[in-house]
Amino acid sequence: MTPSFSRRVPDGDTVVRDVCDTCGFIAYQNPKIVAGAVVRYGTRILLCKRNIEPARGRWTLPAGYLENGESPVEGALREAFEEATAPIVIDSLLAIYTIRRLSQVQLIYRAHLDAPVFAPGPESQAVALFEPDEIPYEDIAFPTVRWALAHEREPGGPFVNPEIVDPKGPE
Amino acid sequence: MTPSFSRRVPDGDTVVRDVCDTCGFIAYQNPKIVAGAVVRYGTRILLCKRNIEPARGRWTLPAGYLENGESPVEGALREAFEEATAPIVIDSLLAIYTIRRLSQVQLIYRAHLDAPVFAPGPESQAVALFEPDEIPYEDIAFPTVRWALAHEREPGGPFVNPEIVDPKGPE
Ligand SMILES: [Zn+2]
Ligand SMILES: [Zn+2]
Repeated sequence: MTPSFSRRVPDGDTVVRDVCDTCGFIAYQNPKIVAGAVVRYGTRILLCKRNIEPARGRWTLPAGYLENGESPVEGALREAFEEATAPIVIDSLLAIYTIRRLSQVQLIYRAHLDAPVFAPGPESQAVALFEPDEIPYEDIAFPTVRWALAHEREPGGPFVNPEIVDPKGPE
Repeated sequence: MTPSFSRRVPDGDTVVRDVCDTCGFIAYQNPKIVAGAVVRYGTRILLCKRNIEPARGRWTLPAGYLENGESPVEGALREAFEEATAPIVIDSLLAIYTIRRLSQVQLIYRAHLDAPVFAPGPESQAVALFEPDEIPYEDIAFPTVRWALAHEREPGGPFVNPEIVDPKGPE
């Protein structure tokens, strides 16, 4: 049986929610947290070629949805291991991106590898290190990846206020 | 009709979830984001006396759950206005706290007021500015509030890595 939801304002609420037509369950759809990292090995940056939709075949940072009870740094470490089999070291928070239409808040860290140890996980076709002028900008999966790559190259350490809303990369 | 959920591993999943006994809806219960601020006016700190449970009658920072499509800074601004009618100015990210048992990630900002403008909102019994040595530490609502107050007084600006997991204040 497939749950079927209607968009309406539940009793006692003020906001339109998804309400189950069968049992009345209210799906609040809270904002989701994504944790990820721009990972350096020397002058090179680690990217993963996606093996899943959306943007299959395009390059991305290791990043993904936070699990319950997990911290953002732990999530970034886990995603780097799942997608790139890479034992990364987190250095600092790079930026916070909000994607309004997805109700998504991305916490992206600066990280590095102590050795060039990586291999594609099941969600990746390939994992590779790119010099800055080799990054395949025409085949990047998501605008936030372009933003994070650009921010990571800015000097000056952590942003005073690293929050950016609805980032749009060059198309 | 009240939805009734069982804890089990859905088909094709690997993690125990809450599954509706009536319609099979899977409640993924993603981590929740809290946004809030330590707000200064000169040497004093803004605190709100809670008018709702939990911790009714105790003092807290303006903070609350992020809404869909909202950025963390916007959430911190909204909560300060809802709880303290205070038009705060955000200065920088102070810290990220993860509360594992609540699957909660708190993004707490440094902020200030340009004028001592505030009044209790419906969720507050009172709002007040406290000198550091006047803060009612024996009546603070949550451990994270004690942590944020302590972190805000540390010199040195933003943390290199502001993430702290399961903060515990002095009991
Ligand atoms: Zn249902
Ligand atoms: Zn149901």
